Amino acid sequence: MAQNKSGQVTQITDMEADFAQWYTDVCTKAELIGYTSVKGMFILRPYGYAIWENIQRELDQRFKETGHSNVSMPMLIPESLLQKEKDHVEGFAPECAWVTMGGREELEERLCVRPTSETLFCEHWANVVHSWRDLPMLYNQWCSVLRWERTTRPFLRHREFLWQEGHTLHATAEEAIAETEQMLNIYADLCENVLAMPVVKGLKTDKEKFAGAERTYTIECMMHDRKALQNGTSHYFGDGFARAFGITFSDQNNRQSVPFETSWGLTTRTIGGLIMTHGDNSGLVLPPKVAPIQAMVIPVAQHKPGVLDAARTLLARLKKAGIRADMDDSDQSMGWKAAEYEMKGVPLRVEIGPRDMEQNQCVLVCRDSGEKHVASLDGVEAAAVEMLDQIHHNLFARAKKNLDDYTRVCRTLEEVKTFIETEGGFAKTMWCGDRDCEDKMKEEAGVSSRCMPLAQEQVGNTCVCCGKPARTMIYWGVAY
Amino acid sequence: MAQNKSGQVTQITDMEADFAQWYTDVCTKAELIGYTSVKGMFILRPYGYAIWENIQRELDQRFKETGHSNVSMPMLIPESLLQKEKDHVEGFAPECAWVTMGGREELEERLCVRPTSETLFCEHWANVVHSWRDLPMLYNQWCSVLRWERTTRPFLRHREFLWQEGHTLHATAEEAIAETEQMLNIYADLCENVLAMPVVKGLKTDKEKFAGAERTYTIECMMHDRKALQNGTSHYFGDGFARAFGITFSDQNNRQSVPFETSWGLTTRTIGGLIMTHGDNSGLVLPPKVAPIQAMVIPVAQHKPGVLDAARTLLARLKKAGIRADMDDSDQSMGWKAAEYEMKGVPLRVEIGPRDMEQNQCVLVCRDSGEKHVASLDGVEAAAVEMLDQIHHNLFARAKKNLDDYTRVCRTLEEVKTFIETEGGFAKTMWCGDRDCEDKMKEEAGVSSRCMPLAQEQVGNTCVCCGKPARTMIYWGVAY
Repeated sequence: MAQNKSGQVTQITDMEADFAQWYTDVCTKAELIGYTSVKGMFILRPYGYAIWENIQRELDQRFKETGHSNVSMPMLIPESLLQKEKDHVEGFAPECAWVTMGGREELEERLCVRPTSETLFCEHWANVVHSWRDLPMLYNQWCSVLRWERTTRPFLRHREFLWQEGHTLHATAEEAIAETEQMLNIYADLCENVLAMPVVKGLKTDKEKFAGAERTYTIECMMHDRKALQNGTSHYFGDGFARAFGITFSDQNNRQSVPFETSWGLTTRTIGGLIMTHGDNSGLVLPPKVAPIQAMVIPVAQHKPGVLDAARTLLARLKKAGIRADMDDSDQSMGWKAAEYEMKGVPLRVEIGPRDMEQNQCVLVCRDSGEKHVASLDGVEAAAVEMLDQIHHNLFARAKKNLDDYTRVCRTLEEVKTFIETEGGFAKTMWCGDRDCEDKMKEEAGVSSRCMPLAQEQVGNTCVCCGKPARTMIYWGVAY
Repeated sequence: MAQNKSGQVTQITDMEADFAQWYTDVCTKAELIGYTSVKGMFILRPYGYAIWENIQRELDQRFKETGHSNVSMPMLIPESLLQKEKDHVEGFAPECAWVTMGGREELEERLCVRPTSETLFCEHWANVVHSWRDLPMLYNQWCSVLRWERTTRPFLRHREFLWQEGHTLHATAEEAIAETEQMLNIYADLCENVLAMPVVKGLKTDKEKFAGAERTYTIECMMHDRKALQNGTSHYFGDGFARAFGITFSDQNNRQSVPFETSWGLTTRTIGGLIMTHGDNSGLVLPPKVAPIQAMVIPVAQHKPGVLDAARTLLARLKKAGIRADMDDSDQSMGWKAAEYEMKGVPLRVEIGPRDMEQNQCVLVCRDSGEKHVASLDGVEAAAVEMLDQIHHNLFARAKKNLDDYTRVCRTLEEVKTFIETEGGFAKTMWCGDRDCEDKMKEEAGVSSRCMPLAQEQVGNTCVCCGKPARTMIYWGVAY
C-alpha cells in the first residue's frame, strides 16, 4: 500500500513497487472506470467521462476554428466495403467484431462494427464530391470504435474505445500534407498546453504506420515509468483511398482529377496517459484545464456558526470567477475528505474554518506539491486562478524533466539495451531506415521505434544496429 | 415541383401533393442526410449534425443543471444480460443486431448491439450501489443505438439512431416518479421554447408503453400533415429492474432496500419532427435557436467598391452580438443564393449592397414569412436578435394553431373515423381503458392511442368505442 501526502496509508499500490497495479488501482479508486460483463469493455464513470468531455471541448473548439464540421457515420461497415482498400483491410480485418444476425434473420453479408471509418467517408465522398467547389471536405466524428484486442487495460487498450476521427479530402497533395501536419500540431497543443504532457512530434516508420497510409505522424509521450505512449496520430493517404473508391472531381480547368486524403484521431487512451504522467502515491493528479472539479471547498469545523455560510459564499465567488468549483459539506471527517480529493486529483483544496474567517482568509492546498498557501479572501479568485495556472506549469515542468532526463543518445544496440534495462526511456539513435534493423532492435533490445522526430539532429553517422550509413534520427522505447 | 418564396421552381416535390416525398427531398436537398450502402442507416451530414449538436447543447445544459452526469457504457450487451428482465427482452430481442464473431473466432455467447442500455446500467449499479449515500444515481449517455427495423425513413426510423438515454436510481418511488416527470418537462421545454414545437404531455397506454416500464410519459407533437410524432419519452420502472438485477442498498436505518428506477430518451427523430412541423415549399425552415446558421450575410453587387468590406464588417458585428452568422461571397448568383439558404432554412438573410451602404442600412429577409425589413446599420444587431426571436414566436404560433385547429372532440368511433379520413389530426375522446377498445380503434379507424394527456378534461362520460363508463380522456391519431 502507498502512503498519501498526509502520511496515511492509501488503498492503492505503491507506484514504485508495481506501477501497473498502481495504475489500475487509481483507475478504479478514483472512480474513473467500471468493469462490465463484456470482456475488454469498460464503463467510463461520471468522473472519468467528465475528463473526456473537457478534452472533447478543447479539441472540438480547435477543430471548428480550423474549419472542420462534425458528422455522424454508420457504426456498421459491410465486409465488401472494408475490402476495397487492400492494405487497410489487411490491417483491420483480423480484429473486427462481426454482426451476422439482424433481428431473427441471418444477414446476406456480414457487417463489421467500425474499427475506423475511412471506408465510409470514402463511399460518401464518391457520392457527393463532383467539383473543385466541393473541396476541401473537412470532417470529424466523435464516436466509439471496436477492435477485438486479446489483452486489455483501462483507457490504454479497450475492445471499444471513444475517440474522434477526422477525415479530410483535398484538391492537392500539398494541401493534404499541410492538413495532416496542422492536426498533429493541434494534438501537440492539446497535450502540452491543456494536459501538461510534453510530446515528441515525429513520423512513424513504414512498419508502424497506419494501414493504408503513406505517412503517419505521431505524438509520443513519456510516462512516469519511462515507457512510451502514442497519444494521437495523423495520417496522409496520398490518393490511394480516393482511387480505390473512385472519388474524382472536375478541377477549375474542368479536368477530372483524383483528390488527396487525410485522417487523424485521438482517443480516451490520452486519459490513461495523463494518469501515468502526473499521478502519484496519493492517486490521480489532474491537469487543471481538464479537471472536472478544479477547486474543492471544504468547510472546517462546519458545525460552528457561520462556517457553512462562509464556505458557500467562497464557493459562489470561485464559480463566478469561472473556476469549476464544488463543496463537500458532508459528515465525513476532514481526513477522509483530504484523502478523497487527493485520490481524485482535484488540483486545489480550499479550506475555510472559524479561525480563517476571523482573519479574513482561507487555505489553498495544491494537489501536486501538497503546499498550503494562506490567501486573503480579498482577491481569493485571482489567487486561485494563478495557483491553478502554476500547477499546470509545475506538472508540465516535472514531466518535461522526466522526458529530457531519460532521452539518451545511444550509438550501439548494446548501449540501447543497457539503457532500456537499467533506466528505461527513449533511446535516441541514428538509423539506416531498413526494416531488418527495426525488427532486430525489437528482438534484441525489446524496443519498438517510436518515431523519427520532426526536429532532426545529427547524433551520429551510422545506423545504431547495422553500422551502415544512417538516413535519419529515430527514437526507440518500450510502448504501452 | 414546388415553387419557392421567390417564385422559382425548386427541386423539391410540392408538400401538398406528396408530403412524404417533399420530406425526403428536403432531407437530401438541404444536405441533412446521406445514404450509405448499409440499408436503413444514414449519414448525418455536417448541416444535419450541426442541428443535433445544438439540440445536444440545449439538453445537456438542462441535464447538468438538474444534477445529471454523463457516462459511457459499452455498446455490446451479452444475450444473458438482456434476458434478465422478462418484458424488456421480449420487447427488444426481435429487433436486435447480433455480434457473433470477434476477430477470427466465434463468440461463446452472442452480443447484441445495444438497442437501449437499461440492462447495462442495472448491472453497473448492482456493483457500485451499497448505501443510501450512493443515491440518487443520475446518469445520462449520448450515443447511438441499433434496432433492426424493416422499413426506415430519414430521421424518423433508422436502424441506427443517435439519442441520449438518461438512467436514474432513487431511494423512493415518489422521488423516481418526480424525476420521470421532471425529465418529461425538460423535453417539453426543449420542444416548445427551443424548437418552437407545441406538445401534448401525457401517459402512454399499457399497450404503447416501453418494454419493462410501469409508466411511460410522452410528449406528442402534430406535424404539418396532422400526423402525430412521439418526440421524447420518460419511463418509470418501479423496482422491477432493480429486483431482476439484484440492486439493493442499506437505508439510513441500516435496512436493505430495493431502489426505484427511471429512464428517458430523446432521439434524432426530433429533427424529422421540426422539418415536418415548420418546413414549406421552399425547403427547410429552422427554428432560430437550433439553426446552425442564424443569419446569412449576402453582399449585393459584391464587385462594386466597398461592398465586400461593408458585408464583412456587418458579419463581424452580428457574430460579436452572439448570432451564428456566416457570409456567402461566392460567385453564385443572387437568385441561387436566395434559393439555397431558403432550402437550408436559414432564419435570416441579410443583404447589403451599394444603395444600402449609401443609406446606412441593410435588408433583413425572414425565412418563415418572406418579409423584408429595412434596418438601419445603427443597432442592426438588436434588430436581428429581435427578428430571430419573432421568427421563433411566429413558428410556434403557426404550429400551435395547427395543433389546436385539428384536435377534435369525438364521441363515437364513426366520428373519429370520419375526422381522420377527411381532415386528420388528434381525436380527443373518452376511453374505458380496455385494450380491446384500443385494438378496435386501430382496426376500424386506423388510429393508435397517442397519450392520455396529463391535463385531463371531461369531454364525455362514456368510452368512444364500447360506450361503457369512461375512465380517462385520450388522444388518438395516425403516427409516424
